[in-house]
Amino acid sequence: MTDGAMGVLSFEFVTELYLIRHGIAAERGTYADDRDRALTEKGRDRTAQVAQRLLALGCRFDTLLTSPLVRAVETATILVTTGLAATYSITPTLAPEGDIADWLSWLAPWQAEHPQGTLALVGHEPDLSIWAQSLIAGTPHGNWQLKKAGVMGLSVPPAEQALGHSELFWLAPPRLLL
Amino acid sequence: MTDGAMGVLSFEFVTELYLIRHGIAAERGTYADDRDRALTEKGRDRTAQVAQRLLALGCRFDTLLTSPLVRAVETATILVTTGLAATYSITPTLAPEGDIADWLSWLAPWQAEHPQGTLALVGHEPDLSIWAQSLIAGTPHGNWQLKKAGVMGLSVPPAEQALGHSELFWLAPPRLLL
Repeated sequence: MTDGAMGVLSFEFVTELYLIRHGIAAERGTYADDRDRALTEKGRDRTAQVAQRLLALGCRFDTLLTSPLVRAVETATILVTTGLAATYSITPTLAPEGDIADWLSWLAPWQAEHPQGTLALVGHEPDLSIWAQSLIAGTPHGNWQLKKAGVMGLSVPPAEQALGHSELFWLAPPRLLL
Repeated sequence: MTDGAMGVLSFEFVTELYLIRHGIAAERGTYADDRDRALTEKGRDRTAQVAQRLLALGCRFDTLLTSPLVRAVETATILVTTGLAATYSITPTLAPEGDIADWLSWLAPWQAEHPQGTLALVGHEPDLSIWAQSLIAGTPHGNWQLKKAGVMGLSVPPAEQALGHSELFWLAPPRLLL
């Protein structure tokens, strides 16, 4: 194992990446199409509280991407309303079972424009944990629990070296962010 | 990858385990023996703030073990003073380069007495991250950053199955815990 901090510091630059799970949504089966499930009132409130805390911690996202599913778009909307990002973009790759390789192809030119940028992705489990594990260990490896409206923070080197060389610095349930 | 929450729920019981890195200590070289390095004033203050937050979050440790090094014992003392545990025990296995196998041998009988217990270990990096990665993934695998006075939380099944079957639920720098 490398010393994480030294590990990412050896790269030309790192991207500060936040992986955010959508907030608490209506139960499965309450909508004809699972993609339409909306946040509950509690889900909206807790997501707004987490967003406020991220703002207080100094987080600002140069770019915010979200899964196209309603519960994710609503979560991204709250992040924007709170002032964490100017806007969001809907990204099909962030839907359930999206392929991290597609996102890495997008990441390379984004990093060229934002060499020390801060990026946030709103998505789903287990996908976000699988992506995070792939980034830090090369393969999805281990057991993690990212709660709804929970946040993971990673330092990500240039896209072509990102898999296995990124570093986890946060894994936080909303309880730690209220 | 298994769904973490489902993963640990399939076991007879789980231990709630907190791995806590000692607070900010005097620079290397300021003491004749590295083991004697003490917490700085900032290190004591920040550790006390983290301890207060853990208390507010409802943490209580049935047992608190610490590395024998001064900076770790001082950290454990603050945790006890704050009311997180009744007392602490000094455990040589938690010194740098301790072997997780020794700790697992200790854990099995402890779990028999505390089947749903909460346990905290105060120690050092990279050892704590190596142990955590071994617990969640079977081998030390990946790049993590546990800052001084930072905390990792894991759900750990019975000791003989703990390696590779534990689940990470927190990785938090003190910044998230103030």
